[in-house]
Amino acid sequence: MAATKKCVSIVGATGLVGSEVARILHLRAFPIRDLRLFSSGRTRERETTITGRAFPIVPFALEALGEPGICFLAAGGDFARRYARQIAARGHVVIDNSSAFRMADDVPLVVPEVNPRHLVGHKGLVANPNCSTIQMVMVLSPLARRWGLKKVVVSTYQAVAGAGLAAAGELATHSQARLDGRDLPPRAFLDRIAFNVIPRIDAFDGDGWTGEERKMMNETRKILDDRSLSVIATTVRVPVFRGHSESVYAQFERDIDLSEVRLVLEGAAGVEVVDDPAAGKYPMPVDCAGKEQTFVGRLRLDPDFSRGLCMWIVSDNVWKGAALNAVQIAEILP
Amino acid sequence: MAATKKCVSIVGATGLVGSEVARILHLRAFPIRDLRLFSSGRTRERETTITGRAFPIVPFALEALGEPGICFLAAGGDFARRYARQIAARGHVVIDNSSAFRMADDVPLVVPEVNPRHLVGHKGLVANPNCSTIQMVMVLSPLARRWGLKKVVVSTYQAVAGAGLAAAGELATHSQARLDGRDLPPRAFLDRIAFNVIPRIDAFDGDGWTGEERKMMNETRKILDDRSLSVIATTVRVPVFRGHSESVYAQFERDIDLSEVRLVLEGAAGVEVVDDPAAGKYPMPVDCAGKEQTFVGRLRLDPDFSRGLCMWIVSDNVWKGAALNAVQIAEILP
Repeated sequence: MAATKKCVSIVGATGLVGSEVARILHLRAFPIRDLRLFSSGRTRERETTITGRAFPIVPFALEALGEPGICFLAAGGDFARRYARQIAARGHVVIDNSSAFRMADDVPLVVPEVNPRHLVGHKGLVANPNCSTIQMVMVLSPLARRWGLKKVVVSTYQAVAGAGLAAAGELATHSQARLDGRDLPPRAFLDRIAFNVIPRIDAFDGDGWTGEERKMMNETRKILDDRSLSVIATTVRVPVFRGHSESVYAQFERDIDLSEVRLVLEGAAGVEVVDDPAAGKYPMPVDCAGKEQTFVGRLRLDPDFSRGLCMWIVSDNVWKGAALNAVQIAEILP
Repeated sequence: MAATKKCVSIVGATGLVGSEVARILHLRAFPIRDLRLFSSGRTRERETTITGRAFPIVPFALEALGEPGICFLAAGGDFARRYARQIAARGHVVIDNSSAFRMADDVPLVVPEVNPRHLVGHKGLVANPNCSTIQMVMVLSPLARRWGLKKVVVSTYQAVAGAGLAAAGELATHSQARLDGRDLPPRAFLDRIAFNVIPRIDAFDGDGWTGEERKMMNETRKILDDRSLSVIATTVRVPVFRGHSESVYAQFERDIDLSEVRLVLEGAAGVEVVDDPAAGKYPMPVDCAGKEQTFVGRLRLDPDFSRGLCMWIVSDNVWKGAALNAVQIAEILP
């Protein structure tokens, strides 16, 4: 029996995440009756091509949404704060990629492989977690279920794709300029991204943490349903086009066993273990673009603490970190 | 009274570190009576220019070292294992940049600002620590003295300069190729360095740690004179030409106070605090090349543990991480 076809709308359809949502819906043969694409007002494009077929893009308006269905928002926090609840009030299920509602008590924050049960009883608004959070909980969750998670210390190596299309262009043009011996002033970033690393993503709070770091710390607790979990994040932008990497050190409640860690991760949905140092195999951003999995490798036991584990986690931040996860939420909506 | 002038030799004088040792000796007006430059056999150059003056370079031979003085070895581990003790036996004080003797019980491993006392009673052979270790202990040492250090979790963002001259060339040529839409096979590295990050520096051991990670773990304990200190390192190569960055999480024996942490670090020799998030100031590799200091910023207290501290440490890996530290050792030799 074919799945019931749904009405689907995407707001921010010309952006990096919105256009990938459209493409992934097609690739995964999501049952769509009516697809409507909207710009959020920041673009003048009138049409977009999804896997060879042209779709019109119109400026967003509540009245243009059509009959109740699934509405993907990939239009930023300001747009979401203004419209998300209004769209939900019209009977649509909103899946918002921004951070606007992620920590709201009545909004589930969902990674389908990790906490699908949080979708039960949703009120029409579901939040897609932060990219760096998603790939980390994909790996931590199965381990937490087995050994109980106490503390996580994570340092990220985040690609420019997470900062939008202009950021990717800036990495290319500014890298070329540097290779030609020229310096261009940063625009999409606050600092030079070419051949540099920037230990800052998002704004700082009064305690010196960035917004991105707080997202990883707070969202991980919410998704794993563990308000007492300690998460310490340092988020860093690196000159990579696509694919976030994370160096994660985790402490558990009970002694861990490395061969069992491998088994648990090999059996985890959406996770692929790439960990064969002798063969030179470990996850890298260059290998993850356009892949659905979250890759984990460099598994090492803390030599000084039998409950400590080091890992290296890589995933396509635009796919599993954003567009793919949003589509997967739509696929399992109750 | 002028310092006694010394006879100085540099082996590996045409390499990245060796040539910088020569330059830094000149910049710091090291009192030299006779400077002899040697190749280690891997180069055919016959002459080098140091701050405008030409010096001959001859193939290394024990007999050519001249009268006892200071001999800087920047010729790799194999060369050091073969010759370092022979050179010392001839009355020279050898300062070796390789990892060959760093963990030997009779060889001091020295960062002058941190453990100068380890030089007392040296037997003619002194080891220069690993680049990523040096900048980390520069910051950890003053904090350890004040609060007692228990555990360190570090993830590195290491520039290609640490891998020699060919590596820097590869980052440039392979980045250009990528920008032109071409792929070149890796040579200096085992994986693509352009627009990628590689979670591997040096060879793997049976427990999944790389040589670079073990160096950071073992050398830190030796330099800080604390065999019970737990150090967990993940070392990663990033597409940056020069300057290593480190995300460090440290746990201390006693409760720490962030304003006092700042005071301690501001008073630490060779350390510069760059930590003004509101003004967009934090250390970055792009700002550290050719600077003597170790820069530290992004200071944050662990919100869940009053003895935990996050930091971001950046330094020129060729200078403080290698050549400058070696010259500073020579300056304080007893």
